[in-house]
Amino acid sequence: MSTPTRRDLANALRFLAIDAVEAAKSGHPGMPMGMADIAEVLWNDYLQHNPGNPKWFNRDRFVLSNGHGSMLQYALLHLSGYELPLEELKRFRQLGSKTPGHPENHLTPGVETTTGPLGQGFANAVGMALAEKLLAQRFNRPEFEIVDHRTWVFLGDGCLMEGISHEAASLAGTWGLHKLIAFWDDNRISIDGDTGGWFTDDTPARFEAYGWSVIREVDGQDSESIKAAIEAALRAQDRPTLICCRTTIGFGSPHKAGKESSHGAPLGQDEVAATRAALGWPYPPFEIPQPIRDAWRAGSAGQVREHQWGQLFDAYAARYPAQAEELVRRSHGELPAGFGADADAFIARLQADGPVIASRKASQLAIEAYAPLLPELVGGSADLAHSNLTLWKGSKSIVGDCTPEESREANYVHYGVREFAMTAISNGLALHGCFVPYDATFLVFSDYARNAVRMSALTGARAIHVYTHDSIGLGEDGPTHQPVEHLAALRYIPGNDVWRPCDAVESAVAWKAAIERADGPSCLVFSRQNLPHQARTPQQLAAIARGGYILKDSVGAPELILIATGSEVGLAMQAAQQLGDGVRVVSMPSTEVFERQDAAWRESVLPQACRKRVAIEAGVTGFWYRYTGLDGAVIGIDSFGASAPAEALFPHFGFTVEHVLDAARALA
Amino acid sequence: MSTPTRRDLANALRFLAIDAVEAAKSGHPGMPMGMADIAEVLWNDYLQHNPGNPKWFNRDRFVLSNGHGSMLQYALLHLSGYELPLEELKRFRQLGSKTPGHPENHLTPGVETTTGPLGQGFANAVGMALAEKLLAQRFNRPEFEIVDHRTWVFLGDGCLMEGISHEAASLAGTWGLHKLIAFWDDNRISIDGDTGGWFTDDTPARFEAYGWSVIREVDGQDSESIKAAIEAALRAQDRPTLICCRTTIGFGSPHKAGKESSHGAPLGQDEVAATRAALGWPYPPFEIPQPIRDAWRAGSAGQVREHQWGQLFDAYAARYPAQAEELVRRSHGELPAGFGADADAFIARLQADGPVIASRKASQLAIEAYAPLLPELVGGSADLAHSNLTLWKGSKSIVGDCTPEESREANYVHYGVREFAMTAISNGLALHGCFVPYDATFLVFSDYARNAVRMSALTGARAIHVYTHDSIGLGEDGPTHQPVEHLAALRYIPGNDVWRPCDAVESAVAWKAAIERADGPSCLVFSRQNLPHQARTPQQLAAIARGGYILKDSVGAPELILIATGSEVGLAMQAAQQLGDGVRVVSMPSTEVFERQDAAWRESVLPQACRKRVAIEAGVTGFWYRYTGLDGAVIGIDSFGASAPAEALFPHFGFTVEHVLDAARALA
Repeated sequence: MSTPTRRDLANALRFLAIDAVEAAKSGHPGMPMGMADIAEVLWNDYLQHNPGNPKWFNRDRFVLSNGHGSMLQYALLHLSGYELPLEELKRFRQLGSKTPGHPENHLTPGVETTTGPLGQGFANAVGMALAEKLLAQRFNRPEFEIVDHRTWVFLGDGCLMEGISHEAASLAGTWGLHKLIAFWDDNRISIDGDTGGWFTDDTPARFEAYGWSVIREVDGQDSESIKAAIEAALRAQDRPTLICCRTTIGFGSPHKAGKESSHGAPLGQDEVAATRAALGWPYPPFEIPQPIRDAWRAGSAGQVREHQWGQLFDAYAARYPAQAEELVRRSHGELPAGFGADADAFIARLQADGPVIASRKASQLAIEAYAPLLPELVGGSADLAHSNLTLWKGSKSIVGDCTPEESREANYVHYGVREFAMTAISNGLALHGCFVPYDATFLVFSDYARNAVRMSALTGARAIHVYTHDSIGLGEDGPTHQPVEHLAALRYIPGNDVWRPCDAVESAVAWKAAIERADGPSCLVFSRQNLPHQARTPQQLAAIARGGYILKDSVGAPELILIATGSEVGLAMQAAQQLGDGVRVVSMPSTEVFERQDAAWRESVLPQACRKRVAIEAGVTGFWYRYTGLDGAVIGIDSFGASAPAEALFPHFGFTVEHVLDAARALA
Repeated sequence: MSTPTRRDLANALRFLAIDAVEAAKSGHPGMPMGMADIAEVLWNDYLQHNPGNPKWFNRDRFVLSNGHGSMLQYALLHLSGYELPLEELKRFRQLGSKTPGHPENHLTPGVETTTGPLGQGFANAVGMALAEKLLAQRFNRPEFEIVDHRTWVFLGDGCLMEGISHEAASLAGTWGLHKLIAFWDDNRISIDGDTGGWFTDDTPARFEAYGWSVIREVDGQDSESIKAAIEAALRAQDRPTLICCRTTIGFGSPHKAGKESSHGAPLGQDEVAATRAALGWPYPPFEIPQPIRDAWRAGSAGQVREHQWGQLFDAYAARYPAQAEELVRRSHGELPAGFGADADAFIARLQADGPVIASRKASQLAIEAYAPLLPELVGGSADLAHSNLTLWKGSKSIVGDCTPEESREANYVHYGVREFAMTAISNGLALHGCFVPYDATFLVFSDYARNAVRMSALTGARAIHVYTHDSIGLGEDGPTHQPVEHLAALRYIPGNDVWRPCDAVESAVAWKAAIERADGPSCLVFSRQNLPHQARTPQQLAAIARGGYILKDSVGAPELILIATGSEVGLAMQAAQQLGDGVRVVSMPSTEVFERQDAAWRESVLPQACRKRVAIEAGVTGFWYRYTGLDGAVIGIDSFGASAPAEALFPHFGFTVEHVLDAARALA
């Protein structure tokens, strides 16, 4: 074989995808076949990365938002030299392989984020590009552009139909993320067929309306056109770029190209043979000729690239040691050495002071206390800053006119009314690294962001989701704004820690736990209304971090246990006073954290022998049978709320001392 | 007082809103003050309604998508003559009033849908406009335009920032819903302040990109400009219209107009007085001068309007009796007389035939059986028609070239990849009346639509949400596509019936129940993979509709009860065979329906005395402790799934006969 052509290089991607899907008997060949030429140009000519170190700090980020085309990414990673051997490609979609059906960041080196749920990869990419911009503002100095990388994202029609594409594109435009470059795989086919019946947007005009630079009508099967488009995108100085690539899904397949039949199923043996013939690819499955392999390899170039950057960074570190130290620390996801002790001191002070405030206010106090220690904390709210109380004294908006010096401190994001993109952008910030993002809305509107919260957990993103107005305690805004099922629904997301603190002290502990939890998200759920302060011994104070603990113990073994969270802990304490010495009160701010404690702890808090148990929470009852069993009682709310002042609603829905006493006394 | 001016009429709206918010000490005066002039022109000059009969069939639909401005709607309803007395306005946001914080369709006459969760009212309106279009196509005849009404919707900046606005607007454009007219309250203020920092879209250009007619730069405080814009909108023949109204939030307030401080809190006594002075409104709170009241009253005109329409309809009924009968039946939400018996016959045949198929295929068989009886059934999928199996032989797409005769049968919606708008459009179709809508996606992507499912339940919409690929049984697509927590999370939405059938028979019963449930939504959850058929006596067959029943009973009182749903029922039956005569198997396709049965039924299925219970479901375990208590066991999955063939995944995650036997035998 002579020097391979660009088409040869792209065909290597195509056939790795075709053959892996064929071997797996499932998968999506159409997208890799259509986008191979784009991917080839981008990866071979532009992507700044180092296959030998997928975590190199200043690498470009590549996001496959149309994640069903995962084999394209695996082929790219394999060929360019990441630790993804051919054997893994042959085990595409098999149990325990590094090549799952959709790309998963925690499984595969070089995969920046998990994609598949459409549109979210795009929003993650916006978060990554924002991360780069904020880091560059903070750390770069004249002659030291130590932060300087791009975010490249592949998008399908599906991504663009999803609502989150609107939210994310709008923010990217507002923020002027010029190092964000998106490639639209404009193949006019989605699963149901020709998109003419359901996708008639003028997408270029739409993105221009968001303030993007749009490069129209690029032939996505022509390397020169693609190159020209990328060159133009690189010149954009103040806005993100959408490159609209006309492609053919299943390119090269004589009978399935341009058809939805190539989208989500193997081509089939005969069609694979026909495609081999049509594209002039005589090699057996999974065999890549050496010249093509050689042309793809990017390891040495990547090594040189990282080395050169390393030299620049060393010089930077000599000149700006404090900045370099902070950047290194943050890039490792480490907190400042003193954070834990400082936080504990703050928590102890709160315990001593005993403020009676809304837990959302307590949340703000915690931010106020912790944020000055944590330049990595960047956050915002979906247009509810003054309700969620997410602003603190050091908050500086990321947009607006300011000097370069001022922009170094930028840390506050006004997300507008865009809960889903906000949350997915948080995930992107966290996955990029160097940031601990928080976002906020009313608890009920966690619904709008729900799959992104799930993705926080699946990707292991340290994202902190702040949800205030956590129950009927929200009051007059009524049932559309009153969460009922949300606490339970969030707790059931695997790997998601939910905290619902009962006072300012538990709120500060929850924030600390969320910040220290390096490998996953936390949802911090706060009240609108004031909550009483609870007295605690030092042992009890330390026990909050275990998720569930004895707040008031019985004299002797408990005859009855009241279990409560958040605003209902105060109610439980009141009821316990009247129920006498045999009653224990358990505060359970985080059931997930409690479940991670050892059996001895759990038994010490909730002894199996005591079956008289009453759980109290202003949410659905079903969740709590796990702790009350068939013999206990649950006081909760299984209907929608109502519009009225909170003081009227709590008694209306049965959250009264009398009701708790009745329930406790009714237990056999 | 002389003849009131338009501004006087608008000020009546303003001050009812101002005074009610002041009395409630909470609420949102800014939007009603800003949009009052628009509302006044629309309601007094254009809206075709009959305040004396809020359910008049051919009324225009009015939707307040920016539902926090609820007092505007209450003021309009009150003044125009709906049964909403002044006393109710004085009780704004109080327990039991008909004037809750956000408009609720089931509480207040004239409120078409519940709004507040931003963007969804707009999508509901798209559904209502689609309903009108489909009904007109089916029922209108030359000289008999018996279906002819518009859908008017008010939108705020928040609605337009939300992703669902993209999805819904795109579909409305594709469908050419020219009787849909939206008013954008372009006041450049959202809760966080001036939207310049987070909402920089060129919204008119965006909507033009969706194929809308856009009327720009209308002075929303000037009646003549508003009238001219509406006249232009009425001339649109093939596309929906967005009227962009420049308004001032809190218009008339000397110190708060144009500021976010007028958005969501009472103006305060002094500012109310200053606003009265500024707008020349000397009347005490809640007092409306008689000439203004008289000018607002729309009762007689509405009566005449309905009467005229009634005459037309009578003539139509004489000429087209079958069509008229169908329309009347459908408008009452009644099913055809024979539906129940026909469905039962189909179910009995399935029980006899015993097909071993995926429940998604069984779902398609049920649609195939029921849809020919139900012209009101209109549905579709979010670009997964051939995976969700939502197409049936009689499916005819609502778009495309067809004759008027063909268009009468239009009943299938290709929603594209837009789960959230799809679901909210379903709600709009259901709330409009004359339709039983179904929609579909993979169960995991119910997340994307979650708050709209909640709104189905809160509004009491008969919307049927079909969710296939219901567990790790989905296989190779992996954890992004495998639901784990979704069954539990959906069941916890108050008023939402979730069905997870174990075979074709239960699938057909679930569909029947969903169709017959007139006052709320159902989620029908189906497998990707084949499920075994279960034998049943006639009594068992009848018992499926109770949500939980004994599928295999023990000899004598049960020593052990296995409880399962969906694909795990077959596993439970296999295990029961090996566990011996003391074992009962309970199939629990719908826990919500089971919970609505009387105590005797529930006790007969799950006797309190039997505490050896094992629940089996390929979802989170937490949900099932409600049925197993502290002494039972739950076999489920509390982590994310994995990418592999389903046959590998079930054993990997412990869904084996051996594991069930071990769990059963481990019970004390």
